[in-house]
Amino acid sequence: MDRTRRHLVIAEASALLARTPAILDAWLRNLPEGWLVAHEGGDTWNPIDIIGHLIHGDRTDWMPRVRRILEDGDAVAFEPFDRLAQFHESAGASLSDLLDQFARLREANLTALAALPIDEAALNRPGLHPSLGRVTLRQLLATWVAHDLDHVSQIARVMARQYADEVGPWRAYLRIISGTQG
Amino acid sequence: MDRTRRHLVIAEASALLARTPAILDAWLRNLPEGWLVAHEGGDTWNPIDIIGHLIHGDRTDWMPRVRRILEDGDAVAFEPFDRLAQFHESAGASLSDLLDQFARLREANLTALAALPIDEAALNRPGLHPSLGRVTLRQLLATWVAHDLDHVSQIARVMARQYADEVGPWRAYLRIISGTQG
Repeated sequence: MDRTRRHLVIAEASALLARTPAILDAWLRNLPEGWLVAHEGGDTWNPIDIIGHLIHGDRTDWMPRVRRILEDGDAVAFEPFDRLAQFHESAGASLSDLLDQFARLREANLTALAALPIDEAALNRPGLHPSLGRVTLRQLLATWVAHDLDHVSQIARVMARQYADEVGPWRAYLRIISGTQG
Repeated sequence: MDRTRRHLVIAEASALLARTPAILDAWLRNLPEGWLVAHEGGDTWNPIDIIGHLIHGDRTDWMPRVRRILEDGDAVAFEPFDRLAQFHESAGASLSDLLDQFARLREANLTALAALPIDEAALNRPGLHPSLGRVTLRQLLATWVAHDLDHVSQIARVMARQYADEVGPWRAYLRIISGTQG
């Protein structure tokens, strides 16, 4: 059985993007503090950092890049994305505020996206990524969705690994803790 | 900075377990069918299979094993867990029915768990796993939580990989697609 693949359809990508704030809300709001500041050591992120990162992306990255492609194509490169912006921008904000902020921003962005005239030709329009070079609007929108899911998966991993010692011999069956990925 | 770890506290484990049905509901209910039947090829599971698997665990595995430890300790091994039961038990059920069923089962299980007299001594009580051998009640409860999170992460991965071709050069930045796990 071959693996499945989906072509990007804007309505589907939007439906997926619209759900991320609600997923994170159902998962994290009012969870005991220890789970919200859990991390994997070194400079890895905790769930609050991750939401701050998603907020920064929704504020400065995704929609500005969509507009840049539509307006300038690949004549002007995207602004680089500051992957660490959340450490000054969201410092001190409560999880509850961050969840509210993310939900508002995401909704506004998807409303703005739906108002743009994006047809198949526009999806193939090129933009210029500062490190990756030529990309298309289609690739940008698909990446927005996959980037959300990457961080959903990261939150699950960070949380599961808090019990790395507590699961005992079951560790062998839990890929999320043992680190083997299928 | 050392990685963080959590000790198992039943109230925390229950709070985490209580959230999984709502996370999956916010994520999957009414999503276009193509995303619900997406998989990674071979005999990998789609999101509907995964919910069927979680339902089977909540019906036959976790709480019966809790009770077996409390009643028999390690004198009687757990029943083996049928990892493929969802393919006959949930065959033909709609996602919507499965989400409702999972939410009801999980709530009933957590109510039953809260009614059991589990103190620190009980958490250290041994049980007998048919393949892993000696485990404790603490390990069983921690594994229940980590197992949920493992499958949340799996759903994120299966979905993100549907756009593996669509993200283009961004693939290099998306661990969830490129398969490198931190």
